[in-house]
Amino acid sequence: MDPNLRTLTVCAVPGVPLVAPGDDLGALLVAALDAAGVALRDGDVAVVAQKIVSKAQGRYAYLDEHPPSPRARALAEATGKDPRLVEIILSESSEVVAHGPNLIVAEHRSGHVMANAGVDRSNIRSDAGRERVLLLPEAPDAACESLRRVFERRFGVRVATVVSDSVGRPWRTGTVGLALGCAGLPALEDLRGRPDLHGRPLEVSLTALADSLAAAAGLVMGEGDEGLPFAVVRGARWQGPPAPARALLRDRELDLFRR
Amino acid sequence: MDPNLRTLTVCAVPGVPLVAPGDDLGALLVAALDAAGVALRDGDVAVVAQKIVSKAQGRYAYLDEHPPSPRARALAEATGKDPRLVEIILSESSEVVAHGPNLIVAEHRSGHVMANAGVDRSNIRSDAGRERVLLLPEAPDAACESLRRVFERRFGVRVATVVSDSVGRPWRTGTVGLALGCAGLPALEDLRGRPDLHGRPLEVSLTALADSLAAAAGLVMGEGDEGLPFAVVRGARWQGPPAPARALLRDRELDLFRR
Repeated sequence: MDPNLRTLTVCAVPGVPLVAPGDDLGALLVAALDAAGVALRDGDVAVVAQKIVSKAQGRYAYLDEHPPSPRARALAEATGKDPRLVEIILSESSEVVAHGPNLIVAEHRSGHVMANAGVDRSNIRSDAGRERVLLLPEAPDAACESLRRVFERRFGVRVATVVSDSVGRPWRTGTVGLALGCAGLPALEDLRGRPDLHGRPLEVSLTALADSLAAAAGLVMGEGDEGLPFAVVRGARWQGPPAPARALLRDRELDLFRR
Repeated sequence: MDPNLRTLTVCAVPGVPLVAPGDDLGALLVAALDAAGVALRDGDVAVVAQKIVSKAQGRYAYLDEHPPSPRARALAEATGKDPRLVEIILSESSEVVAHGPNLIVAEHRSGHVMANAGVDRSNIRSDAGRERVLLLPEAPDAACESLRRVFERRFGVRVATVVSDSVGRPWRTGTVGLALGCAGLPALEDLRGRPDLHGRPLEVSLTALADSLAAAAGLVMGEGDEGLPFAVVRGARWQGPPAPARALLRDRELDLFRR
């Protein structure tokens, strides 16, 4: 559209291969950008799906290696889930926030609250007949910072990075993209103190920039067999210093939806 | 970026004037598109901020016209909010889901759960010294369908529409865009039954398309004095028949975060 209008472009980058533990993810993503003819520019945001970050980190867990504890058995009984899977979910969690039929909502050790503490059974090949699941990445903000440096070195510009996941939400059906980690941008943009249209300070003026970018990227990354775990957002604007996705976690004491 | 890549463009459309009750919103938006030189194309999604839909509908409430009921007084006492404002929030709500200091999370009559049942004090000029607030639009899905028809008549192509709002969420700080209404697209895209990368049916495969579009549009619409309540998303793809934003509301019985 008109280049004079405020425009954001979200572009899926094809060519990312299946990722295996120990792979140099930064190098794979740079290779995909090169093959697609996309040179990152100043202000671009590279959005990377959680799955490939976790796979590169080798964050697999094997069901047969996690004999369920009594607590896992009780929660499996209450939810109808596989007790071994529940054991893995509990080992990844700092708190079970709620549970119901076939659903456990838990706070992952990173602080993100989501179904099954982010433990994922989809897109996971069984390994020599052994069932395995994929866990959330370790230290997603640090993983973003590491990727950000790879991109900056390669392209010589200032870029930002987001590691995204698709999550469900209370009260609403369907998943949206969410930022597990970010670097080079303020995860939470603070517009407090800026006047509204009528010169009155904005009441609600913290925007979840990183989550919005993850949701936008989700529109081109897709799920399932499309296999596009990498996108570039061009034209996003923000103000304020970088802050990690950890800044998006609401204080437990201020949260009405924690016990 | 490369036109061969899967690309989504989100463009803020300037030139929407301040909207007053009774204004023909469709005509104002078409005029803004014309002035910006944007001709809608097949598959475009027009995203319209809730505020201007509500303003065109004249959805103002005056605090001095809502003497608080005993129930509103009690909730005002518990939350520290203005009892007249609480009266308005209750009159807009079918259920108070939770409350805390300066916060009421309520199910609006439309079914959307959000802070203050969507009652908004920002960007609202006081009217001859009388304090007023802006309520959510009536029948947002129908408003979208009406706008969709205006755009299709004007541009002769198939377009979709979303009415968006910025909302807070449990567990996370900051607001993201969310769809209060939509037309011409499936609010919820059902990918169940499609195989994942390894031929296994996707477990989590309902994506909140309309919410994701609203979040993406929020990145260019901005808050506060920027005043860009209208955006066009080009390049979004979906499958399945249109379904309204009502399809995004989770059944109360299946929701762990309702009483």
